[in-house]
Amino acid sequence: MTETLRRHHDTYPTRTGRHDTVLDRPGPVVRGSAADGPIDAQTLQGFESKGYLSVERLVGPEELDLLRAELARMSQDPGVRADERTVIEAKSRQVRSIFDVHRTSEIFKKIANDPRVVQRARQILGSEVYIHQSRVNFKPGFEGKEFSWHSDFETWHAEDGMPSPRAVSISISLTDNYSFNGPLMIMPGSHHRYVSCGGETPEDNYKSSLIMQGAGTPDKQTLTRFADDYGIDVLEGKAGGAVMFDSNAMHASNGNVSPYPRSNIFIVFNSVENTLVEPFGAAEPRPDYIGVRDFTPAG
Amino acid sequence: MTETLRRHHDTYPTRTGRHDTVLDRPGPVVRGSAADGPIDAQTLQGFESKGYLSVERLVGPEELDLLRAELARMSQDPGVRADERTVIEAKSRQVRSIFDVHRTSEIFKKIANDPRVVQRARQILGSEVYIHQSRVNFKPGFEGKEFSWHSDFETWHAEDGMPSPRAVSISISLTDNYSFNGPLMIMPGSHHRYVSCGGETPEDNYKSSLIMQGAGTPDKQTLTRFADDYGIDVLEGKAGGAVMFDSNAMHASNGNVSPYPRSNIFIVFNSVENTLVEPFGAAEPRPDYIGVRDFTPAG
Repeated sequence: MTETLRRHHDTYPTRTGRHDTVLDRPGPVVRGSAADGPIDAQTLQGFESKGYLSVERLVGPEELDLLRAELARMSQDPGVRADERTVIEAKSRQVRSIFDVHRTSEIFKKIANDPRVVQRARQILGSEVYIHQSRVNFKPGFEGKEFSWHSDFETWHAEDGMPSPRAVSISISLTDNYSFNGPLMIMPGSHHRYVSCGGETPEDNYKSSLIMQGAGTPDKQTLTRFADDYGIDVLEGKAGGAVMFDSNAMHASNGNVSPYPRSNIFIVFNSVENTLVEPFGAAEPRPDYIGVRDFTPAG
Repeated sequence: MTETLRRHHDTYPTRTGRHDTVLDRPGPVVRGSAADGPIDAQTLQGFESKGYLSVERLVGPEELDLLRAELARMSQDPGVRADERTVIEAKSRQVRSIFDVHRTSEIFKKIANDPRVVQRARQILGSEVYIHQSRVNFKPGFEGKEFSWHSDFETWHAEDGMPSPRAVSISISLTDNYSFNGPLMIMPGSHHRYVSCGGETPEDNYKSSLIMQGAGTPDKQTLTRFADDYGIDVLEGKAGGAVMFDSNAMHASNGNVSPYPRSNIFIVFNSVENTLVEPFGAAEPRPDYIGVRDFTPAG
């Protein structure tokens, strides 16, 4: 398909103009029902309207210890630190994220394929699912950095070639999330609208955007309007709990001057009916450890 | 008095050693009673134990508009922007703080001397009070910067020559304070202990410390212990409300990626029985617009 033709047929055009354009997102968000798995009807309905749901205690205390120990082990492993899949904070030299952990760590592979996780993803997406991306994130105390507002799907569409926002992320908390240690913030309901962002994708955008976003970030005017329309939910919660959120939810997190670090495991499930094609807004797809092209169903 | 003698007699030594030392703070915090003014007995007791109190609606909507308009006017005035009393963000070129506003603006002078404000300060400090410092602060949306944990008194003692922590600050909110737009955070009860900070005061420390603190900042170990002992209160509240807090309360604020800016008027009242002497931990006192040496009672 030629570039012009692709753009013509693209329901989610982005990085094409000078300014943001806001489009309504077509179709349902939740495609399964309460009968299909552990999420009850009311919670599914909440996900449809707000774009996220919380699970209070997804993993138990012993599992939590195991997961934390694995994160600590990997963060200190010189081989892991040197790997391209690891993002290091420029100033503090601390590990910020390690990608692809569902393929490089037996422990993270296990939790990423656990029925408690996968069944919920299937239930929301209404099909078999596969893992589009996995990572562990670490936000240190005192100097944890912020992450600006964005829709993950915009990037996955533009840079990875994900056709539609039929994907869901789960963030499993390895530490307590307080309002003061830079927790996830979501604009509830924002997933119903798609922000076609202005600007073009620079070459190898992912190398800098994993640290601090540029392309794919809505402008201040759009974000202010979104915040006025939808409000901002601050997702507090205990370690061992989880948040699942729609791939098109507008989200961000503040920095962290508190003494308490924040870390989580982040797994993105995509529907097997929504597998990647060529990127819609970039010359080359991002590396496989960021946008996985092995579509084998999880679980 | 010689340097050695001063240090010998100093109840609040700081910036003398290599490491932090934590001392108990002697004496009462609240020296007035409910009979002396608008603060009731329970709220005064809360201030004694937590080191702060909140006033839900200190100024009305019309006053608030007036104060906001004055802040906007000053922030845009080229003369004010060029003045040494104005702190500009290095990157965004936005005004971060304007000092000494109780002497440079009729509107801010009026609120700083208003009975609603001054009577409360007198009631806490148990004497006539004067203004040690005033400023307006502006934390922009999207890119507002954080402020690390510190006790104001430590700096006022070391760099301004304030003998003891018999001073109270009032922050009047010109915008709503949400947990997500970088509000004031206080460790409740921390004002009962004094952190004697390690390190020496660099020359003209105030020029950089108004932007990002260095000297006078407790180390991570001390701050973690304090947070474990006292917890962290996040001070949300509507525009027009105020927070009063003890000069030795450990406080900080996170950055602000939300679209909503945060601004306030900040006035420090010191007891007339606690007027400034020579600095206890610096070669020269800071300029008069930061540590006022006109001890005329307010109100």
